[in-house]
Amino acid sequence: MSKTYQRILGSPLPLFITLFTVVLLCLNLNAQDDSLQIRSIYDKALTEGEAYENLRQLCKDVGNRLSGSEGAQRAVEWSKSKMESYGFDKVWLEPLMVPKWTRGDTETCIILPEKTSLKVLALGFSIGTDGPLRGEVVEFETMQALKDAPEGSLNGKIAFLNQAMNPKLISTFSAYGGCSGGRVRGPSVAAEKGAIGFVMRSLGLRADDFPHTGVMYYSGETDSIPAFALSTNAAYYLSKALEKRTVEIVLEANCEFHSDVESYNVVAEITGNQHPNKVITVGGHLDSWDVGEGAHDDGTGVIQSLEVLRLLKENGIEPKHSIRCVFFMNEENGARGGRAYAQACNERNDEHLAAMESDRGGFAPRGFTVDASKVEIEYLAEWVDLLEPYNIHFIKKGYGGVDINPLKEFGTPLIGFVPDSQRYFDVHHTENDVFENVNKRELELGAATMTSLIYLMDKYGMPEKIED
Amino acid sequence: MSKTYQRILGSPLPLFITLFTVVLLCLNLNAQDDSLQIRSIYDKALTEGEAYENLRQLCKDVGNRLSGSEGAQRAVEWSKSKMESYGFDKVWLEPLMVPKWTRGDTETCIILPEKTSLKVLALGFSIGTDGPLRGEVVEFETMQALKDAPEGSLNGKIAFLNQAMNPKLISTFSAYGGCSGGRVRGPSVAAEKGAIGFVMRSLGLRADDFPHTGVMYYSGETDSIPAFALSTNAAYYLSKALEKRTVEIVLEANCEFHSDVESYNVVAEITGNQHPNKVITVGGHLDSWDVGEGAHDDGTGVIQSLEVLRLLKENGIEPKHSIRCVFFMNEENGARGGRAYAQACNERNDEHLAAMESDRGGFAPRGFTVDASKVEIEYLAEWVDLLEPYNIHFIKKGYGGVDINPLKEFGTPLIGFVPDSQRYFDVHHTENDVFENVNKRELELGAATMTSLIYLMDKYGMPEKIED
Repeated sequence: MSKTYQRILGSPLPLFITLFTVVLLCLNLNAQDDSLQIRSIYDKALTEGEAYENLRQLCKDVGNRLSGSEGAQRAVEWSKSKMESYGFDKVWLEPLMVPKWTRGDTETCIILPEKTSLKVLALGFSIGTDGPLRGEVVEFETMQALKDAPEGSLNGKIAFLNQAMNPKLISTFSAYGGCSGGRVRGPSVAAEKGAIGFVMRSLGLRADDFPHTGVMYYSGETDSIPAFALSTNAAYYLSKALEKRTVEIVLEANCEFHSDVESYNVVAEITGNQHPNKVITVGGHLDSWDVGEGAHDDGTGVIQSLEVLRLLKENGIEPKHSIRCVFFMNEENGARGGRAYAQACNERNDEHLAAMESDRGGFAPRGFTVDASKVEIEYLAEWVDLLEPYNIHFIKKGYGGVDINPLKEFGTPLIGFVPDSQRYFDVHHTENDVFENVNKRELELGAATMTSLIYLMDKYGMPEKIED
Repeated sequence: MSKTYQRILGSPLPLFITLFTVVLLCLNLNAQDDSLQIRSIYDKALTEGEAYENLRQLCKDVGNRLSGSEGAQRAVEWSKSKMESYGFDKVWLEPLMVPKWTRGDTETCIILPEKTSLKVLALGFSIGTDGPLRGEVVEFETMQALKDAPEGSLNGKIAFLNQAMNPKLISTFSAYGGCSGGRVRGPSVAAEKGAIGFVMRSLGLRADDFPHTGVMYYSGETDSIPAFALSTNAAYYLSKALEKRTVEIVLEANCEFHSDVESYNVVAEITGNQHPNKVITVGGHLDSWDVGEGAHDDGTGVIQSLEVLRLLKENGIEPKHSIRCVFFMNEENGARGGRAYAQACNERNDEHLAAMESDRGGFAPRGFTVDASKVEIEYLAEWVDLLEPYNIHFIKKGYGGVDINPLKEFGTPLIGFVPDSQRYFDVHHTENDVFENVNKRELELGAATMTSLIYLMDKYGMPEKIED
C-alpha cells in the first residue's frame, strides 16, 4: 500500500465521505417522504374531500353573513359546530365587537326624464337617502379628477366616479387595488366638493348587470352622503347619456347604522406534540357582504382552512407545532377580527411560526406570495419543486392578507395563497358570488396546496429569527 | 509598461472583449424589445381584442357545427368571411370529404319497472335502436373487466361501463385519456360478448345531469349496437339500483349514418416577407359536437388562432415567415381535416417551422407542451422567462394536438397550448359548452400568449434540423 493511500485512510476523509453520503441519502429519503406525503394529501383532498359539501352548507344553509347580521351569527354557530364535529384538540370562540349596518329594502337609481331604472347597490356603510334624492350628475373618469374638482363645484349635484379597472394588469387584484380607493374615499371627497350623492362604476372587469358593493368610510358627520355602485353596464349607459345632455337621476336607499354588536372569530386547533405554544395559523374570513352567498369571498377561504386541519388529521400527520384554523369575523367592513386575533395571540404569548390566508377566491391554485424577510422567502421558495407536479409555480415576495396582517408586528411571516384571479372580479361582492360558481376540484386543489406547505413548515420549521 | 500588458494590448483580446460586450448589449436590447413587444401584444388583446365578440358570433349566430351538418357549412362561410374582413394576404378553403351522422330527435333511457327517465345522449356514430330496445343491464367498472367478460355472457343484455375518470390526476386530460378508450371501443367489445346495447358513465369529473357525447367506432357490421352516455348522476343512480336488484332498461334513439359530404378547412395567411414558403401554422378545429355551442371545444381554439394573426397585424409585426391560421374541419369524428392539411402542405412543398394548436379549452393560460426534439424543446423553453409576467410557467415536452399531428411526419415541431384544465370536463361535449361559460379575459390572455410565442419563433427562427 502506498503512502498516499495510507495517509488518506489515516485521515478523517473516509469518515467525512461516509457521513456526507448518509446525509445526502437522508435528504433524498426526506424528499421522497415529502413527495409521497404531499401526493397523499392531494389524493385525499380530491377523493375524500369535504370542502365542497362544507361550502355548500355555508352558502346554502347559512347564506350571506355580514358582520352583525343574523346570518353572521348563524355562521358562527355552524362553524363552531362543524369544527367540533371533527374532533380537533381545541375549538373556541374569540369575542369581539363588530359594526352593524343594514341595507334596507329599497335601492333604486332612476334616470330622468325617461325613468329608466339602473342596476345599483348601496355601498357598505352608506347612509340612506331619506326619501328620493334628485340631482344633476357630474362624471369623473378618475379619483384624481374628482379630487381636483373645485370646492363647491358639486353643490347640490351627484358625483359619478366612472373609473374602470385597468384590464391590462394581469393580476386582477392590482387592477382592483388601483380603483378601490375611489370606492372607500370617493363619497367623502365628493361631499367635500358639495355633492349630495355619489354613484360609481362597479369594481368589476366584465360588462354585466350586477353591481358590486363594498365598504366605504366617511371622514365625519359632514361628509355623509348616500353612496352607490352602478353595474358596469349601467355606468356605461349613464356615461353615454351624459355625452348627449345634462342628466338628472333620482337615488333612493334606506340603509341604517346600528350600535356595535358582539360577534366572534371561530378557532380550531390541532395542538403541537413538540411545541404546543408555537403556532401556524391558517385562515380566511367568515363574514361576507350581504348579497349573494359569500362563496368565493370568502367562503372558500374559511372552508379550505378548515380542510387543512382535516387533511392533516386524515393523513395521520401529528404536527410538532400547533396548527390553528381561524375563521375571522369582520374582514369586509372593519377588519376587527384580524386585530382581535393578533391581540389575543399576544396576550397568550403564542409564538407564530407563520400565518397563511386564503382570501382571493377558490379558483385553481397557482402559488403563494410571502410577506416576510428575504431569508424566509427564499427558504419557503425551495419547496416549490415539491408542489410543481400540482401546477404550483411560485412562492415569492408579495402580500399576505388583511386578516393575518396584524400578526406582522410580532414578526410573523405572512403567506398569501394565490389562486388564478381572472374570474374573481366577475363575482366579487355581487349577487353572483354563489356556490354554483365554485368549481369542486379547484377548491380541493387549493386546500391540498395550502395543507402541503403547512405540512412542510411544521416538519422542518422556519429559519430562526436573528435579532437586529 | 510591463511586457505582460503590452502582450495583452498586442493580442486580439481587447477586440474580443469589445465584440463580446456589443453582443451582450444587443442580446439585452433584443430582450428589452421582445419584452415591450409582448407587453403590447397583451395590451391589445386585453383592451382591443376581438376574440370574445368573434366567439359570440360563432357560438350564437352559427351555433354547433358537427362535420357534415348545416351548422358546419354555416361555420365555414362565417369563418371565410371573417378572415377576409381582416384583410390578410390570403384566405382559402381546402376541400375534404367528411362523414355525416345525425342524432335524430329521440334519445331516451328508461329504467323498468319504475319508468324513471335517465339523462342520456347517443354517442357519435352510434346506430339507432329501430324502436325501443329492452334489456337487462350488466355493469362493468372498467374497460378491462368488460374485455374479460366471457364470450356470450352478454347475450341479449345491455352492457353498462361505469368507469369514472380518475380524480387524482392533476391533468384532467390524463384522466380523460384513461377512459376515452372505453367510449371509443366499448360498444364494439360489448357487442363481441353478445350485448345488444351499450351505456356508459359520461366522461366528466363532476356529479351533474349533463351527459357527454363523443365519438365511438364499430369494428365492422356485426358489432354495431346502439351506444349511449349517461350523465354522471344517472350512472350513479343506475349503479345504485343494480346493487339491489336486476335492472332492465329501455333505450331508444334514431341516429342515422349518411354518405360523406364535402366540407372544408378554412385557412388565412399573413405571407412572410423573407421566407414566404416557410410556415408557422396555428389552429384549432371548427367542427364541434351537435349539442351546446362548441364554445370551449373548440370555438375558443379557432378564435384564438384567428386572433393571433389579427394581433400580429394590429401590432405592426410583419413576419419573416408565413403565419397561417387554420380552422380544421372534422377533428371530433375522423380528424380528416388535419390529415388533409398536412397532405396539402406536402403537395405545396410548404416547409414548417412549427405548428401550434389550441384545443384544450379557452381557460387561463399556463404554458405549452411541445412534441419535438430535445434541442427544439430546450430552445423554446428559453423564452418562458419572457412570458412569466403573464403567468406562463412552462414550455416543456408533451403533446401537440390532434389536428397538427399529421405534420409530425414531416419533422414539424408541434406545440400544444395549455390552459388550466380543471373546468374543461365540466362542459366538454355537453349542452353546457356554451359561450356563457367562457371568460373574456381568459380567452384573451390565451390568444396573447399564443401570439407572443409565434412572434418569437418568427423573429428568431427555430434550430436548424440536423439530418440523421
